[in-house]
Amino acid sequence: MKTRILATAFALAGSAASAQDLSATLPDSVGAVAPALSAYATDDLFASVWADETLSVRDRALVTFAALVTRHEAGNLATHTELALDAGVTPAELSETITHLAFYTGWGNATAAAEAMAPVYEARGVTAEDLPALDPDLLPLNEEAEAAREETVQSNYANVSPGVVDTTRDILFLDLWLRPALEPRDRSLVTVAALIAAGQPEQMTFHLNRAMDNGLTQDEAGAMLSHLAFYAGWPRVFSAMPVAREVFENRAE
Amino acid sequence: MKTRILATAFALAGSAASAQDLSATLPDSVGAVAPALSAYATDDLFASVWADETLSVRDRALVTFAALVTRHEAGNLATHTELALDAGVTPAELSETITHLAFYTGWGNATAAAEAMAPVYEARGVTAEDLPALDPDLLPLNEEAEAAREETVQSNYANVSPGVVDTTRDILFLDLWLRPALEPRDRSLVTVAALIAAGQPEQMTFHLNRAMDNGLTQDEAGAMLSHLAFYAGWPRVFSAMPVAREVFENRAE
Amino acid sequence: MKTRILATAFALAGSAASAQDLSATLPDSVGAVAPALSAYATDDLFASVWADETLSVRDRALVTFAALVTRHEAGNLATHTELALDAGVTPAELSETITHLAFYTGWGNATAAAEAMAPVYEARGVTAEDLPALDPDLLPLNEEAEAAREETVQSNYANVSPGVVDTTRDILFLDLWLRPALEPRDRSLVTVAALIAAGQPEQMTFHLNRAMDNGLTQDEAGAMLSHLAFYAGWPRVFSAMPVAREVFENRAE
Repeated sequence: MKTRILATAFALAGSAASAQDLSATLPDSVGAVAPALSAYATDDLFASVWADETLSVRDRALVTFAALVTRHEAGNLATHTELALDAGVTPAELSETITHLAFYTGWGNATAAAEAMAPVYEARGVTAEDLPALDPDLLPLNEEAEAAREETVQSNYANVSPGVVDTTRDILFLDLWLRPALEPRDRSLVTVAALIAAGQPEQMTFHLNRAMDNGLTQDEAGAMLSHLAFYAGWPRVFSAMPVAREVFENRAE
Repeated sequence: MKTRILATAFALAGSAASAQDLSATLPDSVGAVAPALSAYATDDLFASVWADETLSVRDRALVTFAALVTRHEAGNLATHTELALDAGVTPAELSETITHLAFYTGWGNATAAAEAMAPVYEARGVTAEDLPALDPDLLPLNEEAEAAREETVQSNYANVSPGVVDTTRDILFLDLWLRPALEPRDRSLVTVAALIAAGQPEQMTFHLNRAMDNGLTQDEAGAMLSHLAFYAGWPRVFSAMPVAREVFENRAE
Repeated sequence: MKTRILATAFALAGSAASAQDLSATLPDSVGAVAPALSAYATDDLFASVWADETLSVRDRALVTFAALVTRHEAGNLATHTELALDAGVTPAELSETITHLAFYTGWGNATAAAEAMAPVYEARGVTAEDLPALDPDLLPLNEEAEAAREETVQSNYANVSPGVVDTTRDILFLDLWLRPALEPRDRSLVTVAALIAAGQPEQMTFHLNRAMDNGLTQDEAGAMLSHLAFYAGWPRVFSAMPVAREVFENRAE
């Protein structure tokens, strides 16, 4: 392992998420049991990956949070909640992220995340006024895109599970996705991160295209893959790479 | 989020699993961190999905329990054990479910489930006499179906892993599947739920057909998919939908 | 369930991992909630599978440990750490295994494993001198194989995520894989076990071939599949079997 001395401490010092925040995500026991792992964390993951400005520290913290929620890493979520808040993700955005991921990665992941987040929110004085409204004015609907999506799902699955068809439309696409508490680009970002972390590249084409329609750049998407290699494991990312490649190539045409 | 006022409180009141049981599966911290998620749970998941009588509350509780065991959601299992017992799943059936899922989702999921269930069983006075026997009279074997299954597995894998071939036959199909503590239809139900929750649609064709051979209706299977969208996440269900569709279509011919 | 009385207690007594060690991985609550599961564990998993000498007890303990780390079974890892150490896996090898699996199954799995392992290491007096060095002399590189791997990844993904291409080369293949703290055969063994446990057979061809190049026999690989059926669930193994078959057949030609 070559120690990579980097100017990146400056990059992190320049953001609200400091090197201290990152170190807090590494339990002391790692140093006691696997000093080499601790060194990889400090030298490569924290000082190099997190400092690569292709994807902002704020986005990296949000993507990491989404991946850990998806993986049900309850024990690691409190420190990553702190990290995300320090990196500029708002309490409302994190709250909306777990609401979104309840639907995209399963209810129990979101409730376990809430239990890890609650003490952090309480310690920081986050109150109900800081959190997303129950019935906000919704963002405008792209009616053409929604009609196309609904037509596809209806024609494929109306006879398989009308319940899935109906709830997908009424709860997800006419409601959840239109809630303003998370920018559409960020909502797509956490969705794609969740799909990669869950090992579901077969569901990624639609959502990566949507993410890029919503403003995610190809460079940012590539940096997200590199970031998630650490948090979701290399094989998850290598299974997602062919899908990303195809999406990028089709959009370039 | 439109508040969906529903007559479904009646449906739940009519079963042993009350609205209180469902609320108990929602930790207070969800309301503190994500009030919108709490509202989705109450208005959509509890009042609407659980109340859809296409799949009984008893079956929904069993399917949810199986999904949570598969996802290693140990922290959520005690309340879901209570819910399942109140909904009419017997202690013997839950016990047999984790025994079955030890083989279908991994030993550690079942042992973690046992640790979550033990205090509930003790508090309710469940004793050894209430639990499945070690060596019961087995259900009759469908010898033709078993011969076909064995022939397929032998011809494909005898040279790959004789251990898998032998244990699959001796432990799973000539023993576990014939234990009477869980109706074959319910054994299939929890198996399919586990495969969807684990993200293994590629293993679902055999087991969904078997579930329907054992009495699961197509409407119930469709309602299970809709139910699991909440507990395993929408993408898991959308990856399972094409397999369900093909099974349904092939059986209709 | 036929009780399988076996001579295998002898086999286990002959290794450092005794029947007591295996029993310690079965919490008492399993007997209280699911006596049949407890009997399957004792009669089939412990007395029969673990005693099959096609794969050594030491390898079984390492493979099981890798699977549990991958599945984030933090609650089961302390007893399996004890079991692995008693079976002859060294503290340095387990330490290096979690360092390796941080990259292959996600950072949070490795840090959770470290937290479970730390008290065991402390109780056994394992100190920093017993653990892998940070900057060891690396094993020699197979330059031809590495050039081929790099060429494939570059040509496919240089435009998708240069970060993934670079870190895969610099951190994984020019560093991590060359660290001497884990024999290449064992490093491959835990990698393949992790891929099976994570449900990623699509990434297995490269690593199973590499494992066999590094000395894993086909019989051992088949026994690993049979072993992992218990710890990762039958469906994970049945999804891996076609890949193993194809690898075995291609190597036989």
